[in-house]
Amino acid sequence: MATIVWTKIDEAPALATYSLLPIMRAYTKVANLNIELRDISLAGRIIAQFSDTNYLREDQKIPDELAYLGELVLRPEANIMKLPNISASLPQLKEAIAELQSQGYNLPDYPENPQTEEEKDIKARYDRCIGSVVNPVLRQGNSDRRLSRSVKEYAKKHPHKLEPVSENSKSHVAHMVAGDFYENEKSVTIQKDTKIRYEFVDKNGNVQVLKEVEVNAGDVVDGTFLDRAKLRDFYEKVIEDAKDNDILFSLHLKATMMKVSDPVMFGDAIRVYFKELFEKHGKELEEIGFNPNNGLADLENKMKKLPEDKQNAIKQTIAEIYEKRPRMYMVDSDNGITNLHMPNDVIVDASVPAVIKNGLKGWGPKGEVDDCVITIPDRSYARMYKEIVEDIKVNGQFDPTRIGTVQNVGLMAMKAEEYGSHDKTFFPPADGIMRIVDAEGNILIEHQVNAGDIYRSCITKDIAIRDWIKLAINRAKEAKMPIVFWLDRYRAHDRELIKKIKEELPKYDLSDVEWYIKSPEDAMKYTLKRFREGKDTISVTGNVLRDYLTDLFPIIEVGTSARSLSIVPLIAGGGVFETGAGGSAPKHVEQFLKESHLRWDSLGEFLAFVEALKLAYKQDGEKDKRLLILADTLDRAIEKYLENDKTPRRKAGQLDTRGSHFYLAMYWAEALANQKEDEEIAKKFAEVYQKLAENEQKILEEIAATEGKPADIGGWYHPDDVKAEKAMRPSATFNAIIDSI
Amino acid sequence: MATIVWTKIDEAPALATYSLLPIMRAYTKVANLNIELRDISLAGRIIAQFSDTNYLREDQKIPDELAYLGELVLRPEANIMKLPNISASLPQLKEAIAELQSQGYNLPDYPENPQTEEEKDIKARYDRCIGSVVNPVLRQGNSDRRLSRSVKEYAKKHPHKLEPVSENSKSHVAHMVAGDFYENEKSVTIQKDTKIRYEFVDKNGNVQVLKEVEVNAGDVVDGTFLDRAKLRDFYEKVIEDAKDNDILFSLHLKATMMKVSDPVMFGDAIRVYFKELFEKHGKELEEIGFNPNNGLADLENKMKKLPEDKQNAIKQTIAEIYEKRPRMYMVDSDNGITNLHMPNDVIVDASVPAVIKNGLKGWGPKGEVDDCVITIPDRSYARMYKEIVEDIKVNGQFDPTRIGTVQNVGLMAMKAEEYGSHDKTFFPPADGIMRIVDAEGNILIEHQVNAGDIYRSCITKDIAIRDWIKLAINRAKEAKMPIVFWLDRYRAHDRELIKKIKEELPKYDLSDVEWYIKSPEDAMKYTLKRFREGKDTISVTGNVLRDYLTDLFPIIEVGTSARSLSIVPLIAGGGVFETGAGGSAPKHVEQFLKESHLRWDSLGEFLAFVEALKLAYKQDGEKDKRLLILADTLDRAIEKYLENDKTPRRKAGQLDTRGSHFYLAMYWAEALANQKEDEEIAKKFAEVYQKLAENEQKILEEIAATEGKPADIGGWYHPDDVKAEKAMRPSATFNAIIDSI
Repeated sequence: MATIVWTKIDEAPALATYSLLPIMRAYTKVANLNIELRDISLAGRIIAQFSDTNYLREDQKIPDELAYLGELVLRPEANIMKLPNISASLPQLKEAIAELQSQGYNLPDYPENPQTEEEKDIKARYDRCIGSVVNPVLRQGNSDRRLSRSVKEYAKKHPHKLEPVSENSKSHVAHMVAGDFYENEKSVTIQKDTKIRYEFVDKNGNVQVLKEVEVNAGDVVDGTFLDRAKLRDFYEKVIEDAKDNDILFSLHLKATMMKVSDPVMFGDAIRVYFKELFEKHGKELEEIGFNPNNGLADLENKMKKLPEDKQNAIKQTIAEIYEKRPRMYMVDSDNGITNLHMPNDVIVDASVPAVIKNGLKGWGPKGEVDDCVITIPDRSYARMYKEIVEDIKVNGQFDPTRIGTVQNVGLMAMKAEEYGSHDKTFFPPADGIMRIVDAEGNILIEHQVNAGDIYRSCITKDIAIRDWIKLAINRAKEAKMPIVFWLDRYRAHDRELIKKIKEELPKYDLSDVEWYIKSPEDAMKYTLKRFREGKDTISVTGNVLRDYLTDLFPIIEVGTSARSLSIVPLIAGGGVFETGAGGSAPKHVEQFLKESHLRWDSLGEFLAFVEALKLAYKQDGEKDKRLLILADTLDRAIEKYLENDKTPRRKAGQLDTRGSHFYLAMYWAEALANQKEDEEIAKKFAEVYQKLAENEQKILEEIAATEGKPADIGGWYHPDDVKAEKAMRPSATFNAIIDSI
Repeated sequence: MATIVWTKIDEAPALATYSLLPIMRAYTKVANLNIELRDISLAGRIIAQFSDTNYLREDQKIPDELAYLGELVLRPEANIMKLPNISASLPQLKEAIAELQSQGYNLPDYPENPQTEEEKDIKARYDRCIGSVVNPVLRQGNSDRRLSRSVKEYAKKHPHKLEPVSENSKSHVAHMVAGDFYENEKSVTIQKDTKIRYEFVDKNGNVQVLKEVEVNAGDVVDGTFLDRAKLRDFYEKVIEDAKDNDILFSLHLKATMMKVSDPVMFGDAIRVYFKELFEKHGKELEEIGFNPNNGLADLENKMKKLPEDKQNAIKQTIAEIYEKRPRMYMVDSDNGITNLHMPNDVIVDASVPAVIKNGLKGWGPKGEVDDCVITIPDRSYARMYKEIVEDIKVNGQFDPTRIGTVQNVGLMAMKAEEYGSHDKTFFPPADGIMRIVDAEGNILIEHQVNAGDIYRSCITKDIAIRDWIKLAINRAKEAKMPIVFWLDRYRAHDRELIKKIKEELPKYDLSDVEWYIKSPEDAMKYTLKRFREGKDTISVTGNVLRDYLTDLFPIIEVGTSARSLSIVPLIAGGGVFETGAGGSAPKHVEQFLKESHLRWDSLGEFLAFVEALKLAYKQDGEKDKRLLILADTLDRAIEKYLENDKTPRRKAGQLDTRGSHFYLAMYWAEALANQKEDEEIAKKFAEVYQKLAENEQKILEEIAATEGKPADIGGWYHPDDVKAEKAMRPSATFNAIIDSI
């Protein structure tokens, strides 16, 4: 029997699960399907970390479900609904520990400075719960992202607003012309399994080994660096030009994902824009430990340590700098939060689409809407943004009622490319040589670097690359769309990938596949031409472009990337269905606790479940047609859900998540009743539909009756299942209908 | 009385003048106009150089007409028809001297190695006749190039052939990503009149002054260099990629105009493509003095000095290299002439349009038509070619019946920009510093360079820049088309120009002017969008883009740039009307000498004369309306000339230049007869028209009677006027009609 794993996660989607999962389980009873709930919530992961210790009572212990899923994804039967979870910061972890302690879990405190072996062990257990630890375990495959037909059609009929673009727009993308990662990249394909080491060699020939990594034959290893002196020269040029042309200065990086390199590139922008500040107050800034890499907010916080006159002098200098320098692009002009306040506020994959949506404009310090320079230092990806920005300036804003769709097949598996480079990013301690040496002492890659430059190496696994090519071809055949590999023949890494593509392609029947290899900017040009003509195209990209394009195109097409399907077809054959690009929405939980109104839209879960059902059908040997019937009817139900706009509203008293689930259930029952392929199912759900339709008003009233009052779910990180289910399933009428299926 | 100067020049257009000028003189008698013939032919310039010596008889001496024109262009009354002349190579100069000697001119031989003061003086006089020496004297203004309405309309009705482009074309433009002139450019605007000096400083601080130049306040001075190590790395990458993708390797430079820098860049391509040759046979190649900058032809010539076995070994290595390296783009595949044989065979402004015309294809070694990489090292201009090539790959080949027109206003005056840089191009003798220092010792620009790098400085005169901006605005108003300044805000030189534009624009009434400043690639994108929609645009560019675009667009629009109007509106107020972008066509002369058939198309002269007449009208204070009538009717005659296709044919016995002049005369007379503005002129030319029309057959027969037999004109460089006129005016009937006007 096929099994779908539904993940138990955190915050809003976890609350929604209390209402949605019973529906999914009830409706799928008609088929041979098992739906398991596996707990990978932050609290669940914490408890699991201590379940082999004596801190917990036996009845509190739970298995390590993440470890289980980590094994499952390596088996062909994996079929996982992965809802958004918390990537915990340290403060969040501590809050979760405190909550569990208050619930009677006798967990130790988090030891900031562990002294004993025991404390070190405790810290190690907790540290395994910090940051983005779920995705790296589950993403044992590449990425297949696209809009479902229903979502795309809905957007064409009900287009979202894209601001028009003036022919005279002065907005443009600025990128480095030399000295960036793009220019300096070197790349090799490993010839036989070996262990490589990263070495820094100083001017006197002293060798320091920075890291060692096992690699396999066929893996692609890159090394590159960014020349920070050239980066700062570049910033100065852009800032001066923005001033001359009186446009806003904006900087778009990815300091979240590229957490080692990009904060430093961000900090350099502060060092250049505010250079006078460092000249005048360098001593004080050092005293208080201001780190530009953490943004101006860090200065504002730490400045409080200084005597008032010095604070005022610094404020005065900053005010003078703002007069001399171009106006800043603002994150929050009401509160004076600029682009440079926090490294994580302006994140390129979301922020550039936002500028595009806004007619190539940003917000200035006085709340004014104005043209801006979109600064993206490294050419590897900046140029494709330049291409789309210039395309819009010439061809005008996109029309969501006419444009095609751009799907993506992304090389993501096994920490592919830059996104797996954090542990291989180094800042050379002095001028010297960074090099990569294999076990036999061969120098594979070597770079002359200066102290402080950003050196970065990526490893892309052979098996991941070949799987990605396969996935692209399969998608092309399935979707009957051309595929474009976004690869630059003159970029070292891409050159190695192109070689593999040329090796792999002849292994497939390509008679029905239209395929191209084009540099990112050329691919963008080709894709946009089709896009504007209403034609559909599949972008086949590396990990970074996967991330960027799967925001860019959905946002242009349907206004948000949260409505995209995000599928990880596992290399081992199974699948992970990711939902909810926007995170786990703590603000929704706050609102629910305050007034029992949840505005989480489960559309992502609905859409993903269609795909999970289809996979279950395949995994079951294509025997149980009822799984397909369930998938198809759910898809039709979603269409009606969108068409009638039954998505949750923002305010208490309006339709919320629970009511939206009722409608989904009703439309699904209706579709099941109307299908002609299985009479038994039709008959069964005709009854269900009738009961739901008859009770629509009553059910909505039962839900509405709870609204406006606080909800008690017994915990934030670790809710009480009984309380939470009660809060999320308040309609006795609805529950009775569902539970009787 | 207004005066138009008609230049006496060389070869085919000079022959055509014997027939055409009498017509122009006869027809314009009805107005207050004087047409002077001024001799700036190579022979004329040689004779003039010696007219203050005793080498020549008094009756042989002539004034220095080029010097006269050099003064004239600085006066507002200048109105010059500038036909194509020979830019003499040394062998051509020697031939011309020998011919003059044979005609009784007692000129000294050219002293290759002058020893005495006298010899040095002789050499100096002759050297003033070598190379491109006419244009720099006459081009005391910027450039206004466009297609006349008649030529454009004709091409829309009778489109030339542009080969279709496959969606799968692998052709593309490759350029450097770092280390080129673009990256390294620095630029300053001079603050007060001064003398600047170019210095090289070696590692030990020794200073060598390379050149001194006077500059004025407002002049823009640039310095930049190309890193040849990076150039060679780039070539290697491109060559490898071409091999991997099995496309032709082509290299597009401008070794003619950029005669100091580009041959070296050309030579480096040979050094890289054939590196194995230098490794294996370096000693022999040095012995025979092979200079790669002169192309493979130089090797083929000099190789003959070697013993046969060594020659064979070299040939064998070359054959092996051709196997290992990508196939070469051929200039003449029948005769094995590759792109790398001569530095002057593939010239970017003509060669890229040729590739475009040919459907983004070139010819390979076996005469096969195939995709190619279009290698253009420097980004300053490569990217706009990349933009148009990619545009064609995505949007398809252009359709001459639908596209708009792209006119050009070019910053050309006073040796503007790179085209005036030859005397300020240096090859640093060692690693060190190149710098520009003003009279007060301030270092204006400084570059760290390596031995052998190509260092280049340009000076662009303030007055020329401001005149160019004025011309652009005037053209925008006149043509009612948007103007686009093709300037890159992040290129140092362009940045200085943008500042001046922002200073100048407020001085004009711009209420009816649509203007933009866009980087070359963005300008190309904007222009092409309009172009494909049939809309017209004026490109306002620097000197290099002037040269490139005024070939590119006319070739796409009408198949040739020879049919463009090329006007130099002089800064002093006059005008120079240049004709015949294709040179002076020696092959046409050869054919004429052999079989009395001249196939020079005087269309350029006809078109230019319309403009010269309009200028004469203005110069005369807009008093003599008859000048305008002559201009308008000539324009209508040209339309009919094109419509009835009376351009000369290729073969003896068919219509030739002389017959084409007859038709132009007949159509012009007809138009003059039909115009209603001046009855007297109408009456006069009604008669002329009648006579010409009645005698059409007879006149053509009188011309045809001379065809197929050799012609005697008494000299190549210095024809006998009587003989030449006789050969070019063979129809007594036609001559009688013309001469009686």
